[in-house]
Parts: sequence; C-alpha cells; structure tokens
Amino acid sequence: MTKGETKATFSNPGYPLVENRVQAEIMVFVRDEVGSVSRAKLTEVLGVSRSKVSNEVGRLIEAGLLVEDGLAESEGGRRSSLLSIPRGAGVVAAIDLGATSIDVALTTLGSEILSHRSEPADIRDGPRSILGRVKLLLAQLLEEQDSKAQDVLAIGIGVPGPVEQAAGVLRVPPLMPGWDRFPIRDAFAGEYAAPVFVDNDVNIMALGEHWGGVGKGVDNMLFVKVGTGIGGGIIADGRLYRGTQGCAGDIGHISVDPEGPVCTCGNLGCLEAMAGAPAIALEAERRAREGKSSVLADILAEKGELTAVDVGKAASLGDYEALNVIRRAGWIVGRVLATLVSVLNPSLIVVGGGVSQIGHSFLAEIRSAVYRRSLPLATRNLPIVLSELDQTAGVTGASVLAAEGVLQVQ
Amino acid sequence: MTKGETKATFSNPGYPLVENRVQAEIMVFVRDEVGSVSRAKLTEVLGVSRSKVSNEVGRLIEAGLLVEDGLAESEGGRRSSLLSIPRGAGVVAAIDLGATSIDVALTTLGSEILSHRSEPADIRDGPRSILGRVKLLLAQLLEEQDSKAQDVLAIGIGVPGPVEQAAGVLRVPPLMPGWDRFPIRDAFAGEYAAPVFVDNDVNIMALGEHWGGVGKGVDNMLFVKVGTGIGGGIIADGRLYRGTQGCAGDIGHISVDPEGPVCTCGNLGCLEAMAGAPAIALEAERRAREGKSSVLADILAEKGELTAVDVGKAASLGDYEALNVIRRAGWIVGRVLATLVSVLNPSLIVVGGGVSQIGHSFLAEIRSAVYRRSLPLATRNLPIVLSELDQTAGVTGASVLAAEGVLQVQ
Repeated sequence: MTKGETKATFSNPGYPLVENRVQAEIMVFVRDEVGSVSRAKLTEVLGVSRSKVSNEVGRLIEAGLLVEDGLAESEGGRRSSLLSIPRGAGVVAAIDLGATSIDVALTTLGSEILSHRSEPADIRDGPRSILGRVKLLLAQLLEEQDSKAQDVLAIGIGVPGPVEQAAGVLRVPPLMPGWDRFPIRDAFAGEYAAPVFVDNDVNIMALGEHWGGVGKGVDNMLFVKVGTGIGGGIIADGRLYRGTQGCAGDIGHISVDPEGPVCTCGNLGCLEAMAGAPAIALEAERRAREGKSSVLADILAEKGELTAVDVGKAASLGDYEALNVIRRAGWIVGRVLATLVSVLNPSLIVVGGGVSQIGHSFLAEIRSAVYRRSLPLATRNLPIVLSELDQTAGVTGASVLAAEGVLQVQ
Repeated sequence: MTKGETKATFSNPGYPLVENRVQAEIMVFVRDEVGSVSRAKLTEVLGVSRSKVSNEVGRLIEAGLLVEDGLAESEGGRRSSLLSIPRGAGVVAAIDLGATSIDVALTTLGSEILSHRSEPADIRDGPRSILGRVKLLLAQLLEEQDSKAQDVLAIGIGVPGPVEQAAGVLRVPPLMPGWDRFPIRDAFAGEYAAPVFVDNDVNIMALGEHWGGVGKGVDNMLFVKVGTGIGGGIIADGRLYRGTQGCAGDIGHISVDPEGPVCTCGNLGCLEAMAGAPAIALEAERRAREGKSSVLADILAEKGELTAVDVGKAASLGDYEALNVIRRAGWIVGRVLATLVSVLNPSLIVVGGGVSQIGHSFLAEIRSAVYRRSLPLATRNLPIVLSELDQTAGVTGASVLAAEGVLQVQ
C-alpha cells in the first residue's frame, strides 16, 4: 500500500457526511457549542487522544465541514483556534407540514435559519399536491440564497401523523387520506441527492425547542402541542424518544372520559376530542346557543360558526363563559399532563400549538391541574411554559433532525 | 518521561475499573454477549481500529478483567480467540430491599448469580437494622463462596422508594420512616472499598428483566410491579430511563378516580389505592361482609382478615366474587397501562410483583383494557407477559446496575 492510498478521498456531499464516529462526535459537539470549540476542548470532552482529534479535525477542514475562526481564551500556553461550521459547507432543507400549513426553510448545517416561508395549505390535498408545492418553495428559497440543489446536504420533514421510522412513511394517519405509506423520501430523489429524514410534527417541534428554544440544555423535556390535534414530543436523557413504532408521545387519544364525545379515532372521550381546538369551539357554540354568553352569541351570529381563536378573543374581552370554556380545556389537558409527569418525571413542560396562544388562563389551568395531582418530588422544579420558538420550532427541529441524521455514522 | 511511566499501573479494585471509554465499551459488550466475543467482533462493533482493540483487550487481560477461552468460528483466515469475564475478576454484591423482604446475592461481574439468600423483613425497622442484616447476609455469602470483602467490585442496592440519583439517597419515601436522606452508600464504607449504586426497586427489576429475562434484547420495555405498591420501570432505547429526580415510572399515584379511596399519599383514588394488594384485600372483605361470597366469608371468619393471596386462592376455587375483585383490579391497572402505551409506545410490557401471581384473570383483564383503549399502531405487536425472573429480577438488576456502574468512565 502506498502512502497515497491510505488517505481516502472525502466524498462530499454524500451520506453520511463523516467517515467515522469521532468525526461525527466532533461535528455534533461543534453544532451544539456554536462558535466556541477548540481542539483542546474536543480532546477533553470526547475522551480520545489529542493527536486523534487534530487528525480528524484536519480531515473535516479539508472536507469543508469545519473552519478555524478566532482564538480561544488562553488558559496558559499556546492559544488554540476555534472551530465552527462554515456557511459554505452546504445547507439543510427544513420542512414542516401541518394540517393547515406548509413551512419551508433553508438553514445552515448548524441549524441556523437562513430563510423561511410559510403558506396556508390543506394536508388532505394529498402528498403529490403538497410535496409539489414544497419543492417549488424550496427551489425559490435556494435561488434567493444563491444556492443549488447539490448544496443541499440533507432534507428534514415533519408530518402531522405517526411515522414509521425504518421506512420513513406515515402509518394510517387519521386525517391524511392518501398519505398512508406514501414514500415521502423518494419524492425528492429526482432533484436532490441528499438523504431525507421524516418524523412526526410534534417530535420535530420538541427537537426544535430543545435545540434552540426554552428547552436548550434540558435533558428531560415534554413538548405538548395543543391545536386541532393534541400530541406530545419526549426528550429523554437529552435525546428524542420515539418508541417502537414511532408513536411515543401520541397522547391525543388517551381516554379522559369513557362517556365523552366521539373522537376522530372512533373511541369516546379522547383528550383530543375533549380539549382540542374543535372541542373548544363546539363547547363555546353550545353555550352561545344556550344564551349563556352574549359576546359568543354575537360572534356566532356574525360568522355562523365559532373557532378556538374567537373564544380566546371573547375571553380577553372579559366574557365569563368563554373564559370557562378555556379553563375547562386547560384543566383537562393538565390532568393528562399530571399523569405524564408521573411517568416521565421531566424537568420542563413546553406548551405550543394554536390553542396555547388563546390566553393566559389556559396555561394557568394546566399548571394548577399538574401541580395539584403530581407527587411533590416530581413537581419541585417543574416549569410549565409556552413555546419560545412557536412558528419556527417545527422548521428548526426539521433542520436538527436532518443535520444530526446526515452527520451520523452507520 | 521514561517508558515505564507511560504504562500506568492498573489499580484493581478501584473505581472505575476501566481506564478509558474503549475499555468500558469492550467490557459492556463482553457482558452482553456472554462467552462469544472475539477481537474481530469488537473491532467491527465498536468502530475503532483493530490495533486499538488489541491493545485495550491486552490491558484488560493484564488487569484480570478478561480471559481468553476457546476459539471463534472461523470466517476464513486465522481463528480468533473468544473473550470472557473470569470468575476471578471479582464479585458483585446485589441487594434488593422490598417493603417486606431482604434479598442478597453474590454475582459475577457478568451478572451471573453465584448465590442468593432471601429473608422476610419489615422495611420500617429503619436503615440501621435493615442494612445491618444485609451486611451480615453478605458476609455469610462471601464466606460460602470463599471470597473476601476486597473481592467485591461493586455493590448494587434496590430500595422501595424514589431515589435521588446524584446523592444516592431516598427522598421522602412514603412508607419508610427513618430512610429519608439516609446515606445508604456510606453504610458499606467501613467493610467495603467498592462503590455503591442505589436505585428504586422497580427500576432494578426492570433492569434485571431486560438483562436476563423476557425483556432481553428489547429496546423499549415497560416493567410494572403490582404488589403492596404499584410502580413502573422504563427501558427506553435500550437504557433505563430515570427522569429528572429519579422518579420516572412512579405510576402508583396516577389519579384513577377523583372520588376514590384515600391513598397513603393523601390524594384520592390513586392507582395504588384502587388496585394494589391492600385494595384487593379490602374490596374482597367488603364483599365477604356483604354476604356475596361464602368462600371469602369463610376465610375471613377463620383468619380475621383477607389478603390478596387469599382472594387469588378463592378465585382459583371458582369463587365468582373473588374473581370479580381480581378482574376489577386488572381492569384498573390496564386502563392506566393503556395511557402509558400511548406515551411510551413500548414493544413489551412485563408484569411482576405479588399481585401478578394471583391468577391468570388478572393478566387477562390488563390485556383487554390495554388492547381496547390504545391505538392499533401501538398495540400491533405488544405482548403483555408475566415476569420471567420474578424472585430474582431484583438482585439480577441490582447486579446489572452495579456492574455497569463500576465499568463506566467519568
């Protein structure tokens, strides 16, 4: 073997982007500690030799995945230079599909958002129509950023239903006809060489909030999305926990009242059917028709129907019945979260999604239900807060999913 | 620096037993793949170079933690020798404290039980009395095995209450006066140099069942103990998940019926107060006094009280009321487990503890409640089975906790 042969050619872009586990760990660490990582720090953290770190950092610099910029604070001896991921390494396409919206963003490999576009959409239009629009948006964003399809290192997509990880397909999504087992990854194969990573929309919101929001640095976190549907994303010991079929955190169909209203899943009294946005709207309509609230009755007369947002507005105007409807929903969600606190013992609960925005009393009720029903040890230091990223949690998480995926070996 | 200095003296016993991460990974892998690991296999699995593996295996053999015995199946080329952990490496002391029992075992560093002793006890006697008896039993077992205190590499203890991992102390254990914040680890410092690892009794049962029972190789598993108390142990992505204060899986105080009986924790209608052994006994007594079952009434008249075991016996004799009491408890447990399935999406539920033994109908009711209320995707392949190790799950898990603990770096 000649010396030349021992130095493998680094193929970039490709999948995985890195050649071995140490390179993967270096990249993940540099991603986490934005702009403040020296070789000395890497040696200390990764527990491998200084020469190994220097060697692998050198190869990553050659491959264009790292650059040196600036010098670390001196701790005696030679000051070491800091490593970061250059913009030129490439971009990550981050896509967040909701029941009623499409979000597409371009981010750096460090999951910093470069540009972001959001459009209303109906997921029931089916995968061909929706993914067609996604690809159009993606092409526009790339052009705006002077980037090309081959600059895309990875694609991350969040979808509003349970995802079977191994195949990257949705499994029997209740509200998404046409999406069952649709090969989402293949849809991008014509235009992009990049690998595609698919996950549930609530999971990517949890990832996003854990990466760049209020959950940063929190090892055990529960993200709860309350919108049309209700779902949870679980960060356990610092990593997203998906469960066996990828449906961990699928809390929307937990039974709250065995004699409650019929849910979209066919069971009675599921959390979602009791406290999701449509349930809030329905309950408010009922009270309006019963003449309990003139404010709600006026909105109903004007628009012909009520939404959860209308109920929030009425409550903010001081309408007692609207406030009670919101409180009731918060209490129901809180009771289920109390159970989740017993099971998961998180150190943070983040509440996101449309309903979380309809007023402070919703969150206040969740808090009192959780604190009242959980064991003191588990709630000693348990903040329950609103999502910080909110509209960008999804695309941030989709970028994290894709970037961490493409930087993994095996 | 002279050559002599570069070769550090391996201190054994000591903590940690290994010098670096690769050594730790080698030991953990050899533990998992009992008696079938070659250097070639390690090179492939750990993703480090062949020379690194050979070097570190050499140091572990020198330290007496590994031996070569036998040859691997040839896959062409030189046959490589197989590595295993010798009996002479030392022993692990495995202790399982229940509300009413003490179990002490000696195991190999590979968590194979060498000897095991079980005695009735009352945990309320307090830490000094209970741990005094434990130390006596341990000394006897060591003598029987011709081992000495300095052969003990690590001590693992399971206790029936929530454990704060960082300090290794119990926190406000409801039924254990005198144990709150008692420094369990220090209690062994006089006689043993070995590090002490403490965890909740249900967590160690989960570890034991995952290591050597029906849960072997299962990445996402829920272990549920139904006895005097009810608790859960969660294996997530192959590892025990403890949560922030170490009380993940503490499901006994999940609210089942807001108007139910008072629980030991002060709340109403907790799972434990509705379906634990005392609740089963009380419900049976009530029905006996109401004249609904002559079989139960006869046992009650004879003994002055009923136990869950009595109810099980009456049911096995065909008593309809006794059977209904058991079914009711199984149904209540199953409803809570249905919620846990939605949250955790495990691929296996293992049911252990005294009540699990009182009859097939208990498990049958749990199954029907779970399958009826969970989403089809999550229960598609979800066996719900009885613990296989049962009486030895605890000490096996305590050994796993201690062995994996002492083999970890940092």
